[in-house]
Amino acid sequence: MSTMQSNTENTSKDTPTPATKPNKGGLEGIVAATTAISKVEGTAGRLIYRGYNIHDLARHTTFEEIMYLLWFDKLPNQTELTQLHSKLAAQRTVPTPVMEIIRLLPKDTDPMDVLRTAVSAWGALSTSGTPTQDQAIALTASLPPLLAAFQRLRNGKEPLESRPELGHAANYLYLLTGEEPKEEHVQGLNSYLVLLADHGMNASTFTGRVIASTGSDITSSVTGAIGALKGPLHGGAPSKVLDMLHAIAKAESPEVWLLDAITHGGRIMGFGHRVYKTTDPRAEELREMARVADPKAFKLSREVETTAIRLLEEEKPGRKLYTNVEFYSAALLSFVGLPGDLFTPTFAISRVSGWTAHILEQVNNNRLIRPEADYTGPDQAKFVPLNER
Amino acid sequence: MSTMQSNTENTSKDTPTPATKPNKGGLEGIVAATTAISKVEGTAGRLIYRGYNIHDLARHTTFEEIMYLLWFDKLPNQTELTQLHSKLAAQRTVPTPVMEIIRLLPKDTDPMDVLRTAVSAWGALSTSGTPTQDQAIALTASLPPLLAAFQRLRNGKEPLESRPELGHAANYLYLLTGEEPKEEHVQGLNSYLVLLADHGMNASTFTGRVIASTGSDITSSVTGAIGALKGPLHGGAPSKVLDMLHAIAKAESPEVWLLDAITHGGRIMGFGHRVYKTTDPRAEELREMARVADPKAFKLSREVETTAIRLLEEEKPGRKLYTNVEFYSAALLSFVGLPGDLFTPTFAISRVSGWTAHILEQVNNNRLIRPEADYTGPDQAKFVPLNER
Repeated sequence: MSTMQSNTENTSKDTPTPATKPNKGGLEGIVAATTAISKVEGTAGRLIYRGYNIHDLARHTTFEEIMYLLWFDKLPNQTELTQLHSKLAAQRTVPTPVMEIIRLLPKDTDPMDVLRTAVSAWGALSTSGTPTQDQAIALTASLPPLLAAFQRLRNGKEPLESRPELGHAANYLYLLTGEEPKEEHVQGLNSYLVLLADHGMNASTFTGRVIASTGSDITSSVTGAIGALKGPLHGGAPSKVLDMLHAIAKAESPEVWLLDAITHGGRIMGFGHRVYKTTDPRAEELREMARVADPKAFKLSREVETTAIRLLEEEKPGRKLYTNVEFYSAALLSFVGLPGDLFTPTFAISRVSGWTAHILEQVNNNRLIRPEADYTGPDQAKFVPLNER
Repeated sequence: MSTMQSNTENTSKDTPTPATKPNKGGLEGIVAATTAISKVEGTAGRLIYRGYNIHDLARHTTFEEIMYLLWFDKLPNQTELTQLHSKLAAQRTVPTPVMEIIRLLPKDTDPMDVLRTAVSAWGALSTSGTPTQDQAIALTASLPPLLAAFQRLRNGKEPLESRPELGHAANYLYLLTGEEPKEEHVQGLNSYLVLLADHGMNASTFTGRVIASTGSDITSSVTGAIGALKGPLHGGAPSKVLDMLHAIAKAESPEVWLLDAITHGGRIMGFGHRVYKTTDPRAEELREMARVADPKAFKLSREVETTAIRLLEEEKPGRKLYTNVEFYSAALLSFVGLPGDLFTPTFAISRVSGWTAHILEQVNNNRLIRPEADYTGPDQAKFVPLNER
């Protein structure tokens, strides 16, 4: 800065309170909030929702049971589950102005941008004030119809009405295709929605909590969280795993392709996580589903997985880069019939249950989340008016 | 949780790395990022943008000079300023689908919800990829036309075309009213826009940086920031200052009204700040402008200010509750002719310059912002299938 110099008029003797400075940046290792919703144990590769192990939940529950668990802090009995289903089914509509807004967006719009805009418009019409459980239900119910409407419209088809007798996963597949969803697809998608529903203080959940901490509304929080999930360092990259697998299928061998990528600084998709230092437990569940769903595609995925882990350990010893949730998500969502650019929006359809649970938890015991910054610019610059610059 | 009990199958010996736990919550005193954009010294009541004292800037610069300073790290010379003006003027349009979207929103929609939705739609059509300075310019230019269009439409008037010869503040006033803006209004609004442009790691700026840290786009970041600014604990309360002043004007005296509010736990609007422990330097500038703009209204505001500070010190000694930026913002924006529900959106019209500067800074030296949570729920709950619950 050319004009910087001492300026006694502006001299300040203010000494700010010394602030704790994280060593690694990115708030790694810093506790931003307390939560009773989920716990990620990175070294053990363990994930629990309100105490329940993710493996039990992935194999034995529906996504609706998980919503109930996250919002109401217990697994529902049959009566409670039926009541929740009724409330969700009643909210599976797209308000007319929101449908018009979706129609106005060009067909080549990024579906995450569509979802962000449609959710924001939905909330402008539907919600205000302090977030409530009923708002969490309504918002979670609304995402599949909003996204499926765009998917239909960009393919030249009219959006469909939801079918109240179908569960959340089955209705989403029906809204996309207009066909009776296959049971194996419903089960696969349901397990995916269960596995991705919550994951500690991840970046999109944290975004939602920061926004909620200002006293803002549930839609503002979820709109922000959708924007964060879009980022490729968070939720925005699963379709790139598929692209990578297609490229590897054409190569001489997985080993040759992966070694070339590692040697020349190319990105290997679907490996490594800020918290997990072993295989992501969600990836273990998705791997088993992918094995059953499509044995041929699985063979390649599995070979890429084992080869990549071995090569990464040889090339970057100690980094502990293992398969993350994105790796087998791509295989599963592809099996279910989703196009690649709906993978991340479908992640949002699951995670909105966790986002809203965290928003309700934040609001229930709130303090504004407002960190500090370490200022590295000049302290005193001498002001020069425009006509003297 | 009724079903909680020991479950050896799920036992984990994982011990997470001990994390630093802030004493006060809300990340108070925790450094989330380094920045060279602005510095807030709470004890001295000092604010600088890239080294320049806020008092010099408020009195001697246009908002366009501040945009340049925040984005390009220097105050512009006349040539640079003219170039920036041309770029801004070229982007002061509302794309047709976005205008249609604004028309679809009901007239009683919260203007912050309109802004959040319109900006999201604008970005869905206009931006993608890694944030750039040109995107920051385009987005900052677009906010006044988007908001003014809604203000016109909800009052039964057609939106207007921007006038390229007008500066940012003057064009905004013109778009709202259709009249030649008064010089005193332009100057007042310009100073407001300068004063509110950036403020360290406040909650909306932090939201924007968290979203940007995932590799997401500039619109996703700004949409999230708008949602955070909406919260009454951040930017969403200045019109409530006006409501309070109107109520006090009808009371026996400011002292009686304020004492009653303090004694009975009522909220006194416009006092106290997480960082400032003395009068906010922006409030000092706004106070002087309010004094000149409307001497009669100022007399009441000033009496409320001095009385409230005295009473708050008597009732809550040591809390150091002083006038914050909201207190005189209300007076100034009211003088300029804005309705109360456009105060916070107008705050966004200023702060988007700082948000985008921070987004560019984050992207330039990025690490995913992903804190941890302190899990307080049960560690092991025994899973019981639905038909046994």
